[in-house]
Amino acid sequence: VQAIIDFIREIDRLKGVERKTKPLGLQRFENSAEHSWQLAVMALSLSRFSAKAVDVLRTIKMLLLHDIGEIDTGDTIVYATEGLEQRKKAEQDAVKRICGMLPEELEAEFVGLWLEFEAAETAEAKFAHAMDRSIPIILNLANNGQSWRENGIRCEQVVKRNGPAVEAGCPALWAYLKEELDAAQRDGWFGADRTLAG
Amino acid sequence: VQAIIDFIREIDRLKGVERKTKPLGLQRFENSAEHSWQLAVMALSLSRFSAKAVDVLRTIKMLLLHDIGEIDTGDTIVYATEGLEQRKKAEQDAVKRICGMLPEELEAEFVGLWLEFEAAETAEAKFAHAMDRSIPIILNLANNGQSWRENGIRCEQVVKRNGPAVEAGCPALWAYLKEELDAAQRDGWFGADRTLAG
Repeated sequence: VQAIIDFIREIDRLKGVERKTKPLGLQRFENSAEHSWQLAVMALSLSRFSAKAVDVLRTIKMLLLHDIGEIDTGDTIVYATEGLEQRKKAEQDAVKRICGMLPEELEAEFVGLWLEFEAAETAEAKFAHAMDRSIPIILNLANNGQSWRENGIRCEQVVKRNGPAVEAGCPALWAYLKEELDAAQRDGWFGADRTLAG
Repeated sequence: VQAIIDFIREIDRLKGVERKTKPLGLQRFENSAEHSWQLAVMALSLSRFSAKAVDVLRTIKMLLLHDIGEIDTGDTIVYATEGLEQRKKAEQDAVKRICGMLPEELEAEFVGLWLEFEAAETAEAKFAHAMDRSIPIILNLANNGQSWRENGIRCEQVVKRNGPAVEAGCPALWAYLKEELDAAQRDGWFGADRTLAG
């Protein structure tokens, strides 16, 4: 039990990892711990819309654990593709360090789930990615495009960077979001449009 | 999909519900969303120590959803027993309002999970309660008793209010925590002791 409690205290630090999106109605940035919670509830709620049948528990485990490497590396916006390989390597080292605190069997399971998520090949990993890639869109659409405007992100970037992953894991969700994104672009919510900037 | 997205946006507000415990090393209070994430990871990690065999997915679903009623009512420290019945009624109304946004089948499932957690009768609900009651102890023990000292909580209160639930759901965890609590009391970390107060 002691080793597991040490691990639970170590991952407490994910509450201090800041993302680029703000919770609706709040002035602060969200952190990766509350983000992971929201993704897990989302997966529970949308699992019937997964492209392929998924083991829901396995999906949720991946989503609960997918960001813990950020405890050492911090969060990076999905549009920053430069240095991606290096960052992913550092994140993997962090995951191994943190899960290394656990009894061997659990360590192997948790590291395996993180690697499975990153590889994005299984049905569960694809569905999990669809959740992770769509939640900033869902929040931005309810937030006047807050993180898009603050980071100068264009609608085409949102579609190009997230569309394939969301559609592959959860096609009905992408069909819905694509329509909403088209409407948001018409309303000038994106970085380059500047209509609502400031 | 639209109804589920509306629900996901509504529960975003749980990120703004403040608890009494501070994340380790941070100066702010934790919120109920990141708390729910930590409980879910904890349940994943400790399920082999449950008093009875549990359906891990069911346990995690309960933990992910158990606090969403606080979106309307706010969080109350576990030691405030006055007005408990009324508060629980208000929380239940909130859960029904929020889950009422969902398609009927999901609504029934989520409300059912919340009620099952509250009733604390099934093996899953008991194990989930053991997680929920022990995490403030785990954080306080690593935090010089922060929320105990700030709220004048005595060691006997911690043991009396949480011991039976933690022991019933996860005996090995309680055995570990009880020893740590005894050591913390010797070190004067509790409200009434005031050794470290301020």
